[in-house]
Amino acid sequence: MEQEKIKPGFGRVRVVLVETSHPGNIGGVARAMKNMRLSRLYLVNPAQFPHAEATSRASGADDLLAQATVCKTLDEALEGCSLVFGASARLRRLDWPQLNARECGIRAAEGSRTGDVALVFGRENSGLKNEEMDRCNFLVHIASNPDFSSLNIAAAVQVLAYEVLMALEQGDERVESREEDLATADEVSGLYNHLEQFLVRIRFLDPANPRQLMRRLRRLFNRAALEKTEVHILRGILTEAGKRLKD
Amino acid sequence: MEQEKIKPGFGRVRVVLVETSHPGNIGGVARAMKNMRLSRLYLVNPAQFPHAEATSRASGADDLLAQATVCKTLDEALEGCSLVFGASARLRRLDWPQLNARECGIRAAEGSRTGDVALVFGRENSGLKNEEMDRCNFLVHIASNPDFSSLNIAAAVQVLAYEVLMALEQGDERVESREEDLATADEVSGLYNHLEQFLVRIRFLDPANPRQLMRRLRRLFNRAALEKTEVHILRGILTEAGKRLKD
Repeated sequence: MEQEKIKPGFGRVRVVLVETSHPGNIGGVARAMKNMRLSRLYLVNPAQFPHAEATSRASGADDLLAQATVCKTLDEALEGCSLVFGASARLRRLDWPQLNARECGIRAAEGSRTGDVALVFGRENSGLKNEEMDRCNFLVHIASNPDFSSLNIAAAVQVLAYEVLMALEQGDERVESREEDLATADEVSGLYNHLEQFLVRIRFLDPANPRQLMRRLRRLFNRAALEKTEVHILRGILTEAGKRLKD
Repeated sequence: MEQEKIKPGFGRVRVVLVETSHPGNIGGVARAMKNMRLSRLYLVNPAQFPHAEATSRASGADDLLAQATVCKTLDEALEGCSLVFGASARLRRLDWPQLNARECGIRAAEGSRTGDVALVFGRENSGLKNEEMDRCNFLVHIASNPDFSSLNIAAAVQVLAYEVLMALEQGDERVESREEDLATADEVSGLYNHLEQFLVRIRFLDPANPRQLMRRLRRLFNRAALEKTEVHILRGILTEAGKRLKD
């Protein structure tokens, strides 16, 4: 929807806050973002917004608050994103691809050259839920004190946004260029639905007892960060195979 | 005076806040420090300290507040330091050695192996005075938005402390999380053969005109670095789908 406003790099990176409790933190996040040249703030069900405390802590970044997009669901906030990073205080999900903050900055900078990128931050006390983490290509862990690892949310945004800025401005050589356009979240989610229906049809997946199958497959393909063409090829395979199945 | 408590590395790095106005910021700094494994906080003429707002913002790092050293002068806070870094919002003093935050982290980590190191942060509104900058070996500028370059003091401490931690821990820890066994080259190549036969069978791949199809699929799966379990799942899907094809 904001396609016409989008510039390469910084303009492609959005920060998504999920169910933030304290409006002051939203303000702190806005300030950290603007300091680091990010501008696109998405709020999923904020407890209190707009709020005087948010404006006060933003101290000069209130333009970001005024332009913030308030959403009802995480899916809505991620619409159009091809690469999603979820901040996680602890490495709780050892089954999911993990990056540190520096690696996240490099990957996000790389992704922002061809598509929209989201940095997602969970609730102050409980972080992201499992199904929210499933929407992420990578979980990001900021290196920290193992005995005191939970950063304030504005501090966590500060570190990741700083690493994105460093990667974008330094043109880090490690940013390998992916020539091809990355698929959007919608396209990838369309592939997963198609795949799931196919697996049910060939009885590889029992809807009554799905176990971890789709989650494992999503994890694999999220890790690869699929390109548009790849989604087309994979869906093409499912369509052709589907036509030739005995019923 | 705390010589007996000092450990190499983190224990040698102190954070010095000069005439901080807002007690909440002192608490935010304490939390950021403890998150990044720093513990030695020095306060030069804080406007209000101790203060309930500092304790509240510290949220669990109040031990650092309790142990903080309150000083009357910057010289007192720098006693015993062999290396002093002064944070500066803008590169105002072009006549003084400048570092960015990453370089500061690396130099501070090096310095902390042999002596005490100080990271000095000025007043919220006016930063450090010229004579205070003169006490610094280096001025540090955190890369930022040229139009909005003044970070909140806790955010600035967060970034520099993060860079110190990254430099001190570098090498011993990359967030490495692939618990699962990676598939061997034979296993992956078995998958590719299986997939190719399947694609020929459903006539998605024409052996007379294969174009780039298998190469593209190999590129996708190679990028993901497949695990053994994933190869089993993918081959399981091909086997089951194969059984249900019309011939």
